[in-house]
Amino acid sequence: MPTSELLQQLQSRFPADRLHTDPVDCYAYSYDNSRNFKPPIAVVFALTTEEVQTVAHLCNEHKVPLVPRGRGTGTAGGSVPEQSGVVLSLERMKRILSIDADNRMAIIEPGVLNQELQDAIRPQGFFWPPDPSSAPYCSVGGNLATCAAGPHAVKYGVARDHVLGLKAVTGSGELIRTGCYTTKGVVGYDLTRLIIGSEGTLAIIVEATLKLTPLPRATGGLTAQFRDTVSCAHAIASIMAQPFVPSALEFLDNNALNLIRNRHPGMLPEEMRALLMIEVDGSESEIAEASEAILQACQVDGLIEAKPAHDTKSLWAARKALSPLLRDVAPKKINEDVAVPVSRLPELLGGIERLAQHYRIANVNFGHAGNGNIHVNLLVDPGNPDEMERATACLDEVFSLVLSLDGTLSGEHGVGMAKRPFVPREIDATTIALMKSVKQAFDPENILNPGKLFP
Amino acid sequence: MPTSELLQQLQSRFPADRLHTDPVDCYAYSYDNSRNFKPPIAVVFALTTEEVQTVAHLCNEHKVPLVPRGRGTGTAGGSVPEQSGVVLSLERMKRILSIDADNRMAIIEPGVLNQELQDAIRPQGFFWPPDPSSAPYCSVGGNLATCAAGPHAVKYGVARDHVLGLKAVTGSGELIRTGCYTTKGVVGYDLTRLIIGSEGTLAIIVEATLKLTPLPRATGGLTAQFRDTVSCAHAIASIMAQPFVPSALEFLDNNALNLIRNRHPGMLPEEMRALLMIEVDGSESEIAEASEAILQACQVDGLIEAKPAHDTKSLWAARKALSPLLRDVAPKKINEDVAVPVSRLPELLGGIERLAQHYRIANVNFGHAGNGNIHVNLLVDPGNPDEMERATACLDEVFSLVLSLDGTLSGEHGVGMAKRPFVPREIDATTIALMKSVKQAFDPENILNPGKLFP
Repeated sequence: MPTSELLQQLQSRFPADRLHTDPVDCYAYSYDNSRNFKPPIAVVFALTTEEVQTVAHLCNEHKVPLVPRGRGTGTAGGSVPEQSGVVLSLERMKRILSIDADNRMAIIEPGVLNQELQDAIRPQGFFWPPDPSSAPYCSVGGNLATCAAGPHAVKYGVARDHVLGLKAVTGSGELIRTGCYTTKGVVGYDLTRLIIGSEGTLAIIVEATLKLTPLPRATGGLTAQFRDTVSCAHAIASIMAQPFVPSALEFLDNNALNLIRNRHPGMLPEEMRALLMIEVDGSESEIAEASEAILQACQVDGLIEAKPAHDTKSLWAARKALSPLLRDVAPKKINEDVAVPVSRLPELLGGIERLAQHYRIANVNFGHAGNGNIHVNLLVDPGNPDEMERATACLDEVFSLVLSLDGTLSGEHGVGMAKRPFVPREIDATTIALMKSVKQAFDPENILNPGKLFP
Repeated sequence: MPTSELLQQLQSRFPADRLHTDPVDCYAYSYDNSRNFKPPIAVVFALTTEEVQTVAHLCNEHKVPLVPRGRGTGTAGGSVPEQSGVVLSLERMKRILSIDADNRMAIIEPGVLNQELQDAIRPQGFFWPPDPSSAPYCSVGGNLATCAAGPHAVKYGVARDHVLGLKAVTGSGELIRTGCYTTKGVVGYDLTRLIIGSEGTLAIIVEATLKLTPLPRATGGLTAQFRDTVSCAHAIASIMAQPFVPSALEFLDNNALNLIRNRHPGMLPEEMRALLMIEVDGSESEIAEASEAILQACQVDGLIEAKPAHDTKSLWAARKALSPLLRDVAPKKINEDVAVPVSRLPELLGGIERLAQHYRIANVNFGHAGNGNIHVNLLVDPGNPDEMERATACLDEVFSLVLSLDGTLSGEHGVGMAKRPFVPREIDATTIALMKSVKQAFDPENILNPGKLFP
């Protein structure tokens, strides 16, 4: 077995508590938050950049797949070692190396959890805008590998907008330094943003210089209830067409609301078929001005009521709990996160409802409406082949619809394994071929998360 | 001559009014706003993507340099055909293909002037934040090739933050499509931001999808006068450390002020040795809050006066005229645009003053202080070899100082030819080698703006 030599070399370089080879120990590193599973031959826990380079050098030499891993919270299979090989866990490289309040920057190792970062910078008056639902459990390194976003992206942008530079190790084990320690810089190519969102296929991030954002002085909440999905979609487009950008604009369709109704009886009125949860932030006067403009934009046919929500904590908690609630109902649900231009949301949401009805698939839609980013959940039972066949056909038409509306197949979850077959419908063959050549420049032996992203 | 065949092929494909081969006609395409000059063998004016592909295919086949060009306003030699070859002018591809107010996007061809874009979107309530001083004359394509910025970058970011997707032609003449038509998207590698700032060395941009920003409701001005440069630098750091981000924060040192004093006697008090010109924008209440916080942050030792400036038009006009004024005084000035973290500005500005004094070089500093981005001008006469020798040594020490302060050699002008020799002091050899492999993936015959960016 050609890998036995590699394992020996790893064993000679890493202590037993930082190298798993027993399948039982490796089990938890065989999957992520998708339905994919494949055990690696080993899991290495690096503590230093040099150790990351060592692992990359060895895997490169032996041409063995090397799959970098944060905390495995992705939903697209991005960190699953589908071709086996070595999983390189970055979870123990978790130092916050500096917080530079004067320059609004922090330097971190990739294993720092998103919430740990927020907790460390909040006392100094800052936050780091990417805030996926998994913030308490996901690593910042993983956030960067997937270009993570979350509800606040509508105002604050996504991970790539909040990183100034990286240190990373390529597939051939070389250490590169990208970007700069200033808010402007144009020396050399922008490898920083190229690596962000590349799902561990180009380089292993070992350090990141993050741009911090001052905490808003205050936050206000609004809710708007609608009689149907399409009128709600019109309100979303209307909100986003006026100049006050909400700091969050979350949409829930009736089936999503029903999940909350089941868990929290009485919280939500029955006649409501779609809900917007809106957050505005800034000074008190900004919040007042923005709230007024947004409530005005909600005045569409089909509106039941739009109003300030003075205590929104329980509602946001319910929104955050939606993904786990869905897992309870349909553990093997198909979860997509398409995005379309906001003006096309009425067509998208109306179209999805029609398709779900046509294919008789239970369907829950919610998401970051201000970015046109909708989480489309098809509640299927993989044990029911007829239902799975209908779901597959339905999904295919959903993707066609999204692309016909100038949309994208993934707003924030990434491609991983899940969306790989559909990539050629969004990106043409010439551009995919160029992306593959770029990968080759970073990873000549194709060891870094091989097979991911591309069909 | 191996190029005669190429010229014949170009002549058979382009009408005479869109193909210059006479050296007299080519003259104006031999230089940019740097001191570099080299005539091309031909200038082609493309009108369509297909024509750009044709030129790229031909140059690729004949291995002849192909230098894409906007309006030649760059200051680093980026668009100078230093290895001769063919200049591809994009100035006639100047259609605004769509303005989509609902989704805050516009699709443009690369030859649209920055000001033409602003004029087209302003009536719909938008602006596009990159605003170099050359806005009336520079093309958006050139803004993207250089990742241009300007005074408003301190609040709104740089060109890369305001582009969602590109169509571009690679060195082998292939058309690629990058990015998406949504504000979030993670399918495939981020080639959009890789191409932005690559100075025409990776691909020729033929179309761009721009993200538009709502016009601020109002704008307010402040000025702060200081007795010396270093106290002013402390105020800059203090302004940037509080949460209200100004929409512009421009610094002028005493020699810059003297240029304005010579042109506008009486406009500026004599005892002032450094000036901040500050802009804040937003609603009236935001402006009031931000102004108060910023005026407070200006209260450092050495402050003469900080106050609202109710009529700032003439002052901003004077600021915009600084570069041309400098050209009058020293037509062959050396103009650098280093950037450091704002907290290091006192060390940078103090250090530059000491170095200029030590090397007896007349020196004018001004720039976008909120990004730590200072335009360092050494007013030299290239006809004076002793002065040039001192200036070269001075510049070398300025760069060492900048890098020792965690800075970058160029905040916005780019590398082009001007900064090429210094790049290895900022970027290590491994990373440069990787950047060169990335270029090879885009441009296998190295025809696109060859020799630029890298030493």
